Amino acid sequence: MHYKLCFIGFGNVARSLARLLERKRGSLKSTYDITYSVTGIATGRHGFAVNPDGIDVGQALEKVESGNSIAPLSTFQVADSLAVIQHSQANVMFENSPVNYETGQPAIDHVRVALNLGMHAITANKGTVVHAYQELTALAKSKNKKFRFESTVLGGSPVFSTFREAMPLAELTSFKGIINATTNLILSRMEDGESFDDAVKYCQSIGIAETDPSGDVDGWDAAIKVSALATVLMDASRPLKPQDVERKGIREITPEMVKQAKAEKKRWKLVASAERVGSQIKGRVSPELVDSSSPLYGMMGSSSGLTFSTDVLPNYSVIVSERAGMKGGPEETAYGLFADFVNAVK
Amino acid sequence: MHYKLCFIGFGNVARSLARLLERKRGSLKSTYDITYSVTGIATGRHGFAVNPDGIDVGQALEKVESGNSIAPLSTFQVADSLAVIQHSQANVMFENSPVNYETGQPAIDHVRVALNLGMHAITANKGTVVHAYQELTALAKSKNKKFRFESTVLGGSPVFSTFREAMPLAELTSFKGIINATTNLILSRMEDGESFDDAVKYCQSIGIAETDPSGDVDGWDAAIKVSALATVLMDASRPLKPQDVERKGIREITPEMVKQAKAEKKRWKLVASAERVGSQIKGRVSPELVDSSSPLYGMMGSSSGLTFSTDVLPNYSVIVSERAGMKGGPEETAYGLFADFVNAVK
Repeated sequence: MHYKLCFIGFGNVARSLARLLERKRGSLKSTYDITYSVTGIATGRHGFAVNPDGIDVGQALEKVESGNSIAPLSTFQVADSLAVIQHSQANVMFENSPVNYETGQPAIDHVRVALNLGMHAITANKGTVVHAYQELTALAKSKNKKFRFESTVLGGSPVFSTFREAMPLAELTSFKGIINATTNLILSRMEDGESFDDAVKYCQSIGIAETDPSGDVDGWDAAIKVSALATVLMDASRPLKPQDVERKGIREITPEMVKQAKAEKKRWKLVASAERVGSQIKGRVSPELVDSSSPLYGMMGSSSGLTFSTDVLPNYSVIVSERAGMKGGPEETAYGLFADFVNAVK
Repeated sequence: MHYKLCFIGFGNVARSLARLLERKRGSLKSTYDITYSVTGIATGRHGFAVNPDGIDVGQALEKVESGNSIAPLSTFQVADSLAVIQHSQANVMFENSPVNYETGQPAIDHVRVALNLGMHAITANKGTVVHAYQELTALAKSKNKKFRFESTVLGGSPVFSTFREAMPLAELTSFKGIINATTNLILSRMEDGESFDDAVKYCQSIGIAETDPSGDVDGWDAAIKVSALATVLMDASRPLKPQDVERKGIREITPEMVKQAKAEKKRWKLVASAERVGSQIKGRVSPELVDSSSPLYGMMGSSSGLTFSTDVLPNYSVIVSERAGMKGGPEETAYGLFADFVNAVK
């Protein structure tokens, strides 16, 4: 089966996905009989391209990475993302536009349009999940297509798909863990004696923190992930909104506090959690002091992880950790999109 | 869709499964439109029962747990497990006979017969995987049925199904972790000052160690799990046999060594691993001294867990840990069988 793909957003993650698809071309064909071509690309600053006969992806990567426009690769005159979706004749849309925490737009519109055109919609954009999970899931179902978003938490590692495919009828009662890698890396570097500001700068230098780091350090990113997890895995009928998650960031954690904790063989961690309390779901993001008896104690650097409590498996934890020389990054997030694609069409 | 089930082996795990199925009867129907009846039960010491119209499971549980035979519940004269499979008219067989590490029998025959009769075959029996994975998988495929064994490692938590369903085309290059809960609990109790013998007795008293504890303490159970994981997830064409796994147990770990490690903020753990070395897969089970920088350091008591290194996700860990008052046990293993059932038929 041949699939035409379009990429809405062509930043680090989407370009890693393009390379991963190319690297896995042989095994996609041999294992699943899947072939593909890329028929549409929308970038933020390097133009738009549509060619239903297939865009040369190598050329598109080269143009974007050398700062040039991809418009010369287009056989259509297209001027925005929606036009790319509409004219690409794609079967699958990968949505990787920048996250808008308040409204989820324009990503939600991209997903709506793609699903309405009969495409599977796969996104790494948390905004679509926290602001429109129910609507987009219902729309996908009505079109017999998939709306998938594995990459939105734990950087591409299976969480949503594990619950969906591997843990049938497990009732999630609570979860707790570290889900913002940037703040975890900042706290780890502070433990090694670096200042908060220098640690933030380091995170910016390796591309895991934004120019404005407040989304990470004030706990917004973690709160939004709590919201997404609780909505999808605990109670989709009453979505937990990011602003309803009790939230405190790491700005108040001073070097003295980190030093004191270290002296006591403890560590400050930005802990995210949610639990059922009566008929409600309570979400929380807050710094906590943990000792070596906590599974969070050993999660250092850009590692992240969650412990899930269910009625059938009391404590099931997933941890995504650093390996020397391979920091969590766009390649892993890209794999989440790749896995969503294969699972949507296989 | 209605499924007839037969239970071959009706020990702690199988009886937990029978109770779990009953507890989930409503959600099986409402979520998946699955209904079921139990039409065959073979026990080790309490007889055999077949009734294609459905056995009263509550009565069967009561009889076995009060030490009586289930034969009066039978509408057929059946005298062995194979006869139960043959006459049950079941669609799904749950195989939970005792493990035979050397040959995998009679479990392998049970699976063969069930698959040949057109049943899905679901087992918690490691022997079937390490001794006949290729044959049984091929047989299942030829019958368009499933051979599933999620419960064989990490006590019912998703591992095989995560790789199969959630991590398409991920290439596993190595794994490492703690996969024998009994030895981990023994080492944890020794750290608290208990003797090896008393720790073994405790494990026997809570039902997680056998009368002859050598399968656990000499590393055989861990070696067999390494073999199963490597065979299924790394290279099914060349199964790694349990006897080919380099193996050392925990008998040489003295109280003095445990005390010394504790003084240095370290811990002895029975570590199981496998990795590709050239064209081979090397498996290993051996005590290792770990410090708090290791993800294994925090796994205490009957916890177990594995870190998987793949080409797409460098370090993906799954940990199954104790929760106060809920030790890992037959309920969790039973969930693995339950999940296999739902995933086989849904």
